[in-house]
Amino acid sequence: MPGNSFGIAFRYTTWGESHGPAIGCVIDGVPPRIPLTESEIQVYLDKRRPGGSRFTSQRREADQVRILSGVFDGQTTGTPLALEIENTDSRSKDYEENREKFRPGHADYTYWQKYGIRDHRGGGRSSARETAMRVAAGAVARKVLHHVLGDGVTVRGALIQMGPHKIDRDNWDWATVEANPFWCPDATAAKAWEKHLDAVRKAGSSLGAMIEVVATGIPVGLGEPVYDKLDADLAKALMSINAVKAVEIGAGIEAAALTGEENADEMRMDGDSVRFLSNKAGGILGGLSTGQDIVARFAVKPTSSILTPRRTADIHGDETEIVTKGRHDPCVGIRAVPVGEAMMAIVLADHVLRHRGAASSGAVRVGQY
Amino acid sequence: MPGNSFGIAFRYTTWGESHGPAIGCVIDGVPPRIPLTESEIQVYLDKRRPGGSRFTSQRREADQVRILSGVFDGQTTGTPLALEIENTDSRSKDYEENREKFRPGHADYTYWQKYGIRDHRGGGRSSARETAMRVAAGAVARKVLHHVLGDGVTVRGALIQMGPHKIDRDNWDWATVEANPFWCPDATAAKAWEKHLDAVRKAGSSLGAMIEVVATGIPVGLGEPVYDKLDADLAKALMSINAVKAVEIGAGIEAAALTGEENADEMRMDGDSVRFLSNKAGGILGGLSTGQDIVARFAVKPTSSILTPRRTADIHGDETEIVTKGRHDPCVGIRAVPVGEAMMAIVLADHVLRHRGAASSGAVRVGQY
Amino acid sequence: MPGNSFGIAFRYTTWGESHGPAIGCVIDGVPPRIPLTESEIQVYLDKRRPGGSRFTSQRREADQVRILSGVFDGQTTGTPLALEIENTDSRSKDYEENREKFRPGHADYTYWQKYGIRDHRGGGRSSARETAMRVAAGAVARKVLHHVLGDGVTVRGALIQMGPHKIDRDNWDWATVEANPFWCPDATAAKAWEKHLDAVRKAGSSLGAMIEVVATGIPVGLGEPVYDKLDADLAKALMSINAVKAVEIGAGIEAAALTGEENADEMRMDGDSVRFLSNKAGGILGGLSTGQDIVARFAVKPTSSILTPRRTADIHGDETEIVTKGRHDPCVGIRAVPVGEAMMAIVLADHVLRHRGAASSGAVRVGQY
Amino acid sequence: MPGNSFGIAFRYTTWGESHGPAIGCVIDGVPPRIPLTESEIQVYLDKRRPGGSRFTSQRREADQVRILSGVFDGQTTGTPLALEIENTDSRSKDYEENREKFRPGHADYTYWQKYGIRDHRGGGRSSARETAMRVAAGAVARKVLHHVLGDGVTVRGALIQMGPHKIDRDNWDWATVEANPFWCPDATAAKAWEKHLDAVRKAGSSLGAMIEVVATGIPVGLGEPVYDKLDADLAKALMSINAVKAVEIGAGIEAAALTGEENADEMRMDGDSVRFLSNKAGGILGGLSTGQDIVARFAVKPTSSILTPRRTADIHGDETEIVTKGRHDPCVGIRAVPVGEAMMAIVLADHVLRHRGAASSGAVRVGQY
Repeated sequence: MPGNSFGIAFRYTTWGESHGPAIGCVIDGVPPRIPLTESEIQVYLDKRRPGGSRFTSQRREADQVRILSGVFDGQTTGTPLALEIENTDSRSKDYEENREKFRPGHADYTYWQKYGIRDHRGGGRSSARETAMRVAAGAVARKVLHHVLGDGVTVRGALIQMGPHKIDRDNWDWATVEANPFWCPDATAAKAWEKHLDAVRKAGSSLGAMIEVVATGIPVGLGEPVYDKLDADLAKALMSINAVKAVEIGAGIEAAALTGEENADEMRMDGDSVRFLSNKAGGILGGLSTGQDIVARFAVKPTSSILTPRRTADIHGDETEIVTKGRHDPCVGIRAVPVGEAMMAIVLADHVLRHRGAASSGAVRVGQY
Repeated sequence: MPGNSFGIAFRYTTWGESHGPAIGCVIDGVPPRIPLTESEIQVYLDKRRPGGSRFTSQRREADQVRILSGVFDGQTTGTPLALEIENTDSRSKDYEENREKFRPGHADYTYWQKYGIRDHRGGGRSSARETAMRVAAGAVARKVLHHVLGDGVTVRGALIQMGPHKIDRDNWDWATVEANPFWCPDATAAKAWEKHLDAVRKAGSSLGAMIEVVATGIPVGLGEPVYDKLDADLAKALMSINAVKAVEIGAGIEAAALTGEENADEMRMDGDSVRFLSNKAGGILGGLSTGQDIVARFAVKPTSSILTPRRTADIHGDETEIVTKGRHDPCVGIRAVPVGEAMMAIVLADHVLRHRGAASSGAVRVGQY
Repeated sequence: MPGNSFGIAFRYTTWGESHGPAIGCVIDGVPPRIPLTESEIQVYLDKRRPGGSRFTSQRREADQVRILSGVFDGQTTGTPLALEIENTDSRSKDYEENREKFRPGHADYTYWQKYGIRDHRGGGRSSARETAMRVAAGAVARKVLHHVLGDGVTVRGALIQMGPHKIDRDNWDWATVEANPFWCPDATAAKAWEKHLDAVRKAGSSLGAMIEVVATGIPVGLGEPVYDKLDADLAKALMSINAVKAVEIGAGIEAAALTGEENADEMRMDGDSVRFLSNKAGGILGGLSTGQDIVARFAVKPTSSILTPRRTADIHGDETEIVTKGRHDPCVGIRAVPVGEAMMAIVLADHVLRHRGAASSGAVRVGQY
Repeated sequence: MPGNSFGIAFRYTTWGESHGPAIGCVIDGVPPRIPLTESEIQVYLDKRRPGGSRFTSQRREADQVRILSGVFDGQTTGTPLALEIENTDSRSKDYEENREKFRPGHADYTYWQKYGIRDHRGGGRSSARETAMRVAAGAVARKVLHHVLGDGVTVRGALIQMGPHKIDRDNWDWATVEANPFWCPDATAAKAWEKHLDAVRKAGSSLGAMIEVVATGIPVGLGEPVYDKLDADLAKALMSINAVKAVEIGAGIEAAALTGEENADEMRMDGDSVRFLSNKAGGILGGLSTGQDIVARFAVKPTSSILTPRRTADIHGDETEIVTKGRHDPCVGIRAVPVGEAMMAIVLADHVLRHRGAASSGAVRVGQY
């Protein structure tokens, strides 16, 4: 049964395999009369694109996005947007050697068992290449957020842990994030990570990572209890990203170790508005946004494609060994940063439109009937 | 927009407020000819019911479930099941004092802002009382799992951390889980926790907790990439439970600190079947079940209703203080154990039926094709 | 797979069998702060209720509706409404005789083949008794329409043909509709129908019928092309009513025989507003409302339960004859009038909320961003 | 809110405007391991393609379909199919003259009011050009039907009325349907229609039409009561086609004039199988297929683009006249025949997969349970 769509009011569907002729998505539910150009989407694709530094896959994709429908005279028309990217640098023969082997930590075995057929080239549909279309859809979601909520909204992400190495949160600087190849907010940590990751890369190994995504300027009241809560949808959106193994909201796992006094955020008034004295909730209470920053984190497992020989089986039921050559990211968590941002933007845009309808316009204060 | 349903093929919708006349749910998509009685559902409701020990809320609800439709001659008919429980011990006046105040850590403020009206009695719709219907739906989901996959399937949960106190996993014994009021799998820890929680309870404070849920006997291939992955749906299902702040699959957050060699589970053959040498994946690769145990964990924040006075605001925009009396769980994580089990059973039943259709069982005569 | 829900933004799910303990529905997506009482729903249930005249089934149901959730202090809260009606006059033994026979024209054979089990009493789930909950949901939908669009909205239905006997449209008078037992808008026809139907009833036979439903006061722009067009959703809603075999919009089938000049409605200006010179379109162009009256018609087949012996088969594969006694409507089309109105109100409320979101309020002019 | 998708288990989404660079669709839910080539889809597109005779639009589109994903080694993989057709013969300047005028009978006025912007070229999104993707999706749906139900399934359509001229049903011959430019099953009628339509075409006028679509080889039990009934979904599918104003199932509107004796189809046994003695039901009882032929009809209004000057208004609120030149079909009903077939195939494939799951075929190895 279908599983390639996400969202209810801002609904998008992705298609395409890693080594097929193209990948693409259709976004249905974008309100009309939002100015939109290909270059506004391209900015975000360029952030995710492989080949940007020695710390990401050396596959060189232009990732040039085309808008094939839904925009007329430079504005959205309320009809579906079709976005498409050609695959240009797919070296399918790199994958011939392991065509019949199940790569450990990958979807090879499970896809084979579920479908009885799989496009083995570069992971086919299960490749992280699909996340390019998440980023493209995320760029459109940002436009929707700005259209409805105004320019004050930001959705930003950062790498806060690489392998066992965490940042020092006291050093957090959003400006730093754009200034190093890791999207790391701590300049000191970023420097140290260069050495760490170089060593890991040369050893043919890989590292996991932890990403934090934060949205500001979100009004009170987004979310649809009791199942489509804002945090529940964020959890699904982030967990659906390739290689993600955990999602936290606000205090996250740490909340388990706290007392009620430590955890519940107290409130004071700030003129006419409620002001919270802390944000353990991560900006979400009862599944609804509180007006504070929305804060989520997610853990990305280390790249499973490594040079160390691993024990595995093949499609004939024989035991074998595998070494995964090809062009791989030593830490996929790095490129997961723009993807995590995109998914948060998508979830927020979806809930804004669920609450207000496509008729939303101008700087609307969500949360007031 | 509607948010009170969950699932695609096994789809249920809950309704009801904490202090309304009743709560209930409708389950649509249950295959026909599954034997089902009220007492089979009651078993699980009794596990979640308040008032069972001094460590849970002293509200005394019989939580007696009635099946109002969808069963004929002791079997499901393929039509919607309506389940209903009357509310019998709701002391609404306990809540009068704080009617206009926003309880910190609760949904009071956000519901008020979103809807402009709220049933303040016992939290209304945002009360954990709603989880009774999750447990009821979960009991039906278990029947579906057994019907389609056989009796080998189990879905079980345990409390593995209370406040800062973790179990020793070497002591894990599923039999122990049923033998203490915490659903703790470590008898030694359970003993220590009694004292801890008694102290917390008497101090009018509360503790967070960590729960682990495990399903066995699940075949390869459940899940619908790339958005309705099994882990993505589990993350949503568990995060949608009241007070949950984090969800992990398999290695979870720990995966961020591992190398590729440590993380990817190797494979060998076991006769005709693939056997994994470890389960860092938590039984899910590429969003599909691997045939191993499905392992998820979630963090529950400490009960926000505590006796310590807290700073807050009210609906008039005035600053005030609040003390939450009433009958509350000192650690809501305890009663979240059967709820977490139920949500996992629901997600699995939903994906089994998405994969196989309602026609899935040989016992069923369905249009003969 | 689930099929017992209707609507996207105003979404309701019905449950219950003809002779079960109760029937009910859950409505999710109702905006908050709409005043709502049980008696406002009861008015419409009373229109559909059996036993009102000798021209409908003699089953005597009080059809007393209860609101079990979603209303607080007399207003909707934005949480799901649960509505419930007890079954009080079900004579199940009337159906014992034909328990194993397939009644021609009924769902007996197909339900048996699909599900392998069926509640035979009064048709079980396939009984038109389910339409009581459509009427209840329709009453709530009307409240939503008035809440968002103002009091100018009306949704009304009339019986325009009974068996071969059609009304004279020149005699159309909405006041007459409420003044005869057929909801017939033509007083002369209504008089003649009394005799016709009396004869048919006494002969143990039955008649088909044609119903017209009309909504006024609907703004331009409702509908979501290209699949959830307003007319497409109306067609589904009306065709889903028991015994309906055809649905027309505007000129309907007659449009097939027209030329382009005859069919396309011309436009003039009326102050600032466009005015159409005719309404062959039935108020819908390109799947969107035009601002004119929305006009739909549907054909209801004659009641299949008749006294004439009919050839059929039974569940054992034996040929047999059947005579359907019990209490039946000689023309089910009569009671389909309030059901058709309800379905149109539901479709309109759903599309209003899809367009404007639950945040809609006051007298909003849909169709302007 | 999104409205550009159709289906639940076989779910497709279309995109594209009449004069944009391309049109396309994504089909999600196609089972794996079905052999599929572009030419198998092309066959059906060629049936619908404009420019085939003097009785259809003279726009000359190659309508060459490409499969961009979801097929590997000539077989479906269970991942989304992306289909795409370039627009090559769009003469946008033909539409400049009427850019700001609302064409009567078209969606110009309603799109303008709903969205505040519209791609006027060739009708933009509201153009019947979108139906090319319905036909493409329908071709894939047929493959699914044959894959699951075998080669005995057929889904065929025919034009049974053009303007006021009906066929003689006694002359019905499916072979004739392919042998004339009208898809008319009555050779005598087809001959007469040539003259009629030539006259209409030369006069710059247009005619409505009636189409009948029939599926054979469909097993008992397809449909999901009580809202996603097979007839309800067919009604929605057919009514969503451009210019359709009525949908009938089986006896259709005629059922309103029948008695119970005339209408209900009696049953006899044919060996082990039930045999119906007539098919007034059109192969559907209680919303479920009966095993008989599924028979639906729909009315298409006359083309609204005609040469006769018509009164209308423009986007500035001024009254004006319009003459629609350009390349138009004198009877759009002709090209609606393959579209109607496609929609019926899609509804049937959707319900087959809802009932059986994607795992439905023995040819497929799916998780071995």
